[in-house]
Amino acid sequence: MNMLYEGEWRTGEFVANNEDGEFERQTTTFRNWVGEDERFPVEAGRYHLYICRACPWAHRTAMTRALKGLEDVISLSLVEPVRIDDGWEFSEDLPDPLYGKEFLRDIYLRADDEFTGRVTVPVLWDKERETVVNNESREIMRMLDEAFDPLAEHDVDLNPDGYEDDVDRLIDEIYEPINNGVYRAGFATTQEAYENAVHELFDALDHWESVLDDQRFLAGDVLTEADIAMFVTLVRFDHVYHTHFKCNKKAIHEYDNLWNYTKELYQLPGVEQTVNMDHIVRHYFVSHDDINPKRIYGVGPDLDFTAPHDRDRLPAELPSALSADD
Amino acid sequence: MNMLYEGEWRTGEFVANNEDGEFERQTTTFRNWVGEDERFPVEAGRYHLYICRACPWAHRTAMTRALKGLEDVISLSLVEPVRIDDGWEFSEDLPDPLYGKEFLRDIYLRADDEFTGRVTVPVLWDKERETVVNNESREIMRMLDEAFDPLAEHDVDLNPDGYEDDVDRLIDEIYEPINNGVYRAGFATTQEAYENAVHELFDALDHWESVLDDQRFLAGDVLTEADIAMFVTLVRFDHVYHTHFKCNKKAIHEYDNLWNYTKELYQLPGVEQTVNMDHIVRHYFVSHDDINPKRIYGVGPDLDFTAPHDRDRLPAELPSALSADD
Repeated sequence: MNMLYEGEWRTGEFVANNEDGEFERQTTTFRNWVGEDERFPVEAGRYHLYICRACPWAHRTAMTRALKGLEDVISLSLVEPVRIDDGWEFSEDLPDPLYGKEFLRDIYLRADDEFTGRVTVPVLWDKERETVVNNESREIMRMLDEAFDPLAEHDVDLNPDGYEDDVDRLIDEIYEPINNGVYRAGFATTQEAYENAVHELFDALDHWESVLDDQRFLAGDVLTEADIAMFVTLVRFDHVYHTHFKCNKKAIHEYDNLWNYTKELYQLPGVEQTVNMDHIVRHYFVSHDDINPKRIYGVGPDLDFTAPHDRDRLPAELPSALSADD
Repeated sequence: MNMLYEGEWRTGEFVANNEDGEFERQTTTFRNWVGEDERFPVEAGRYHLYICRACPWAHRTAMTRALKGLEDVISLSLVEPVRIDDGWEFSEDLPDPLYGKEFLRDIYLRADDEFTGRVTVPVLWDKERETVVNNESREIMRMLDEAFDPLAEHDVDLNPDGYEDDVDRLIDEIYEPINNGVYRAGFATTQEAYENAVHELFDALDHWESVLDDQRFLAGDVLTEADIAMFVTLVRFDHVYHTHFKCNKKAIHEYDNLWNYTKELYQLPGVEQTVNMDHIVRHYFVSHDDINPKRIYGVGPDLDFTAPHDRDRLPAELPSALSADD
C-alpha cells in the first residue's frame, strides 16, 4: 500500500481554488489509446467502463457507447452517486463486477500500486492487462467513436469527415464557459469569481440559443461529439446547476432552442437510459458540504424530456440508426 | 446589563428545529396596541418603525405604511441586511436615527434591560415612552391600517367592512404553507421535513394560481392586508427562495396569474420604493452559514416587475389613491 493524501481520495472533483477564489480543475493521469498502443488492441469484450451516472464527464462516454451501439462490446458498471468521505464507492446494489472491490480507488491501485492522483470517473479498464487504459472523458469518447467503430452496432460517426477540426474546436469552445463553467460558478470561493463564471456561462448559453435557432446541432446539420459534450451539461442544468451551483439567471427550459435541442438529444435511441436524474440530484446536493452542509437535495422542476420538440424544422443528416423510428 | 444567551442574539430568524427536522418559528414578545392602550395614543410623529428591507415580515409594515400614505406620520429607518455574528446592525450608511446605537439589540435593551428574547424586525417604537410598542408584523400591519387610519394621507382601507373575517382567515391560510413555508423548506434539517414543506408550498401556490385566474385579489375585488402578506413572499421568491431555500419546483414568473398579480402589487404607488432586491439577496445568501457557508449570493433572474400586467381584465374596487394614474 502506498502513501496517499486522504484529501485526494475524498473528492473525485478535486476542488482547488487559486488565490482569486477561482476553481481550477486538476488533470487526469492515464492517457493510453486503444488501437494506437499495441498493448491495447481493439477487441470486443476486453474493456470495461467504470462510470457514475451522476457525473457529466462519465456521461459523455456512456452516451457515446449508447449512440454507437457498443453495449455488447464494452461492459459498463456504476459506482454509487453519493460520495462523502472515501470517494467513489461500490455497494451491494452497485457492486464492482470485476474484482468485488469496495472503492474505485482500489481499481486505481490495482492498476498502479504507486498511484497517488485523483480517483475519477470515467475509467476505461482493460480486463486482460488489468489496468486503466484512460481516464480522460474526452479521449474515451473519441476512442469509442473511432477506435471501436469497426465493432459498433450502429453506423454512426460522431466525428465525421470534413468536420474534425470543427468538432475539436467546438468541444474546446464550450468547455470553459459551459461544461466547466457551472463548476467554476459552484466552486467559486469569492463573489467575483462566481459572478465572472456565471456571466460567461450565460453569455455562452445565449450565444448557442441564437445559433441553434438556425441550425440543428452545434457543428451544423450533423450530430457530433460536441453535442454529447453540450447535452450532458444541459440535461443536469435545471435540477442541479441552477440551484446547487447558483446558476440561477435562467433555466434551460426557459430557452426555446436549447430546451428543444436538449429534448431531441434525450430522445435519440439509448440516450434516455444513460440519464439517471435521481443519481444526478443526490450526487451534487449531498457530496459538497462546503456548498450544502445539510445535504438536503432539491425537488427540482417537473420537466418532461420526452415531450415533443420542434427540431424537425431544421435540416439534419441523421444516421438511420438514430432516426426516431429506428 | 442582563445575562443573554449569545445564540439568541445571533439570528433574528431564530432557527429552532424539532426532532423531525422541522423548523419551528419562535414567538414575538411585545404585543401592545396603539389606540387601545392609553399609554400609546394615536399621534403623528410619535412612533418609529425599525425595519430591514430584506425581511418579509418587516416588509408587511413598510408596505402598509406606503399604501396608507403614513410616511409623514410614522418615521422609518433601516438596519443592515447582512447579519452575521451580532444580529441586526446599524452602520454608518444606515445609522440609528434615534439613539445612535450600534445594534438593534440595544434598542430592545433600552425598552427593557431585562429583555432576553429574540431581536427581530419590524419594531414599532414609541419615541416618547422610549419603548417597543409591538414587534409582531401582523399586528403592526393592522395597527397602521386601522389605528393610524385617521392620520393616513390615502383613503385606503386594507381590512374593509364586510371582509374582516375573510382577511384574517386568508392571512392565516397563506401563512403556514407560503409565508412560513419557504422558511420551513429552507431551514429543514431532514429531507422529509424539506419535501413536506416544499410540496405544501407548491400545492398552495398552484391553488392561488387557479383562484387568481378568476379574481383580482386574494379576498376578491378588493386589495387587503392578505395581499400584502402574499406579496412580500412572492417578490422574494425567484431571487432567493427558489435557489437559497431550494424551493426549485417552479419560479413565480413561470405562473401566469401569480406573476401578473405580483407585478400589479409592485406597481401600486409607493410599493416599488419598499423593495430593495440587493438587500433581499445579500441578506439571505450571506446570513445562513448552515445553508450557504461560502456566502456567495446568486445573481438571480432578470425580472422586470415594472413590465405590463394583465390584471385589468378582472374587476377591482381600487381606492383612487392607488389607481395607476394617481
